[in-house]
Amino acid sequence: MQVYFDNAATTPLYPEVIQKVTDVLEQYYGNPSSIHSIGRKSRTIIELARKEISSYLGAKPQEIIFNSGGTEGINFIFHSAINDLKVKRIITSKIEHHAVLECLPLNQKKIDVQYVTIHSNGLIDLDSLEHLLAKKKTKTLVSLMHVNNEIGTITDLKKCGEICAKYQSLFHTDAVQSVGKLSIDVKECLITFLTASAHKFHGPKGTGFLYIERNSGIKAQISGGGQERGLRAGTESVHNILGMSLALKLSYQQLDQNTNHISQLKTRFLNRLKEIFNDLIINGIENNEQLGLPHICHVTFPIPKKKAQLLGFKLDMKGIACSQGSACQSGTPIGSHVLDELSNDSKDEFPSFRFSFSKFNTIQEVDYVLASLEEIANN
Amino acid sequence: MQVYFDNAATTPLYPEVIQKVTDVLEQYYGNPSSIHSIGRKSRTIIELARKEISSYLGAKPQEIIFNSGGTEGINFIFHSAINDLKVKRIITSKIEHHAVLECLPLNQKKIDVQYVTIHSNGLIDLDSLEHLLAKKKTKTLVSLMHVNNEIGTITDLKKCGEICAKYQSLFHTDAVQSVGKLSIDVKECLITFLTASAHKFHGPKGTGFLYIERNSGIKAQISGGGQERGLRAGTESVHNILGMSLALKLSYQQLDQNTNHISQLKTRFLNRLKEIFNDLIINGIENNEQLGLPHICHVTFPIPKKKAQLLGFKLDMKGIACSQGSACQSGTPIGSHVLDELSNDSKDEFPSFRFSFSKFNTIQEVDYVLASLEEIANN
Repeated sequence: MQVYFDNAATTPLYPEVIQKVTDVLEQYYGNPSSIHSIGRKSRTIIELARKEISSYLGAKPQEIIFNSGGTEGINFIFHSAINDLKVKRIITSKIEHHAVLECLPLNQKKIDVQYVTIHSNGLIDLDSLEHLLAKKKTKTLVSLMHVNNEIGTITDLKKCGEICAKYQSLFHTDAVQSVGKLSIDVKECLITFLTASAHKFHGPKGTGFLYIERNSGIKAQISGGGQERGLRAGTESVHNILGMSLALKLSYQQLDQNTNHISQLKTRFLNRLKEIFNDLIINGIENNEQLGLPHICHVTFPIPKKKAQLLGFKLDMKGIACSQGSACQSGTPIGSHVLDELSNDSKDEFPSFRFSFSKFNTIQEVDYVLASLEEIANN
Repeated sequence: MQVYFDNAATTPLYPEVIQKVTDVLEQYYGNPSSIHSIGRKSRTIIELARKEISSYLGAKPQEIIFNSGGTEGINFIFHSAINDLKVKRIITSKIEHHAVLECLPLNQKKIDVQYVTIHSNGLIDLDSLEHLLAKKKTKTLVSLMHVNNEIGTITDLKKCGEICAKYQSLFHTDAVQSVGKLSIDVKECLITFLTASAHKFHGPKGTGFLYIERNSGIKAQISGGGQERGLRAGTESVHNILGMSLALKLSYQQLDQNTNHISQLKTRFLNRLKEIFNDLIINGIENNEQLGLPHICHVTFPIPKKKAQLLGFKLDMKGIACSQGSACQSGTPIGSHVLDELSNDSKDEFPSFRFSFSKFNTIQEVDYVLASLEEIANN
């Protein structure tokens, strides 16, 4: 049996998306910047995709900018915020994705970086955000991820946006793990910038989008063509863009149904896991859909080190794909910077795993993984 | 009839490439950074593609970096050359792609930008390059495109690389128009950096690669993950990368045969065109494959302004796609910055068009376009 429980790292594509991508590759090869009819057909595809995507986020079409994915998006926003918008301070958290954390040292000479407090369960302490903003008046960008990629904790974007607005701070959210899985209204949440990546919601890899609030003053980091209203030069990946917009549409059309299904998988998985492993530690939120995404389940297994070392390997041998450490990182499993911020005293002693679900997973797969874990634990 | 003579703007994909891209989307959805077997399969695809691509350029696999295309690649090289390699001078030409030319003002405060002389036929005057390099000793990046995207003139990379090496200058070539169409050996040509884009050689849009000479000292502009040996963070577009490597393979396997076919198309097209339009002006090189790429044919039509204004539109109505101005630019046709540098006194008075061919074009299509042009000119 092959079980893919690593959907927070990347997801299989919707079959309809694969079909659409193939159709575009076959039929619409024109350069969207060409003014002849073959070019204009590609342009139409892109603009319809932009409209479609914007409609699911409460944005205007012209506020959606296509790019190569979340990491590019985050780098873009940070660099331009510092260089063009003259942001002097960035407030973020120590449990952000590396794309945020590794962006900071590059610019740290120029700016003040402050970190909000993290609750022991991984939730952001929004009081500490307000405290930091109130303490010092300087041009600030707040960057907090909507859903944490390792433990699935959810940040209250609306509350966060209100606090940022109160102190005239810009507000960026890395929504790579939440777009297509949670409803987001960028206007209601007073978001200035939002980053997303298609391959996290059953779309193609190598494409993503940014929401950039109108008149934000942000400037291109990749120049040399008028594409994306001058904000991101380079011939557009037409097939990927249409694939992304269809993936987003399907995700939001099936949102409730998918969430229910995935919640059931997680509940069954965790309940049974607690029976198998007496002292199981659940990292993040166990059972509250307002605070923790059901798609992500992060646990520490209280098993002897010797067994632990081979646990990932043994699961892989049984055809089970899950993640040790953050799976967006290259190469070997390393200690998690997210876990370091939580009150988990066992993290260095015992192995931690992330199991992340999608609509394509089944109860049968959950049971197979449980049986496999039990077998490994008992041998 | 539908005729696509705008292959310098972008190309239709090889059917084999579409099939391969679809296969990857269906079967290999893992994140190449995941350490489980599903992830490792994607990693293998990427590394085989890297090896394949490097083999056609005389590079080592680790010298090939995947990204989203030529524009990103050019921006990357320029920004890092200035910020990390401490380049103080850039020598380039006024007929480079906008990705080069628009990059420069962003950094002009810090660096000295000098332009080589252009011969009246559009070829680079390499003596002027040597003259500039000899005149002043400062850390320099020379950036000259291999094939000009508007007029198809070819720069002698080997001679250029030798001059750069003689004066210890870094050497970047924008090879977006030549990769897959001309043989390139990066070591023989002493190239430090080379940029390429898949969609120009029948590969997918939104993917490209950089050749970066080992130990060049170049640093990432997009950070936040260990991908591409730390030089370009972000989950790789696995399907696009494999599609690109297959497109390159097919292009180089069929290189002689494609070049012969396309040369025949161009010769027939130009010979007949000169008969139809008495005072036809050919921009660039008419008939010398060492100096001008047969894929590109750029002409100025000596017809009255009134007829000229609608020429592009009329061709489009007849199903003929070609380019007025540079087609990589967004929107309306504008005066060409390349033509501005040539000795073409008629460029403001008469309309100029680029017809660019690929292996998929036929003699029948050439004849159809000729007949259409003749009809338009006579009515």
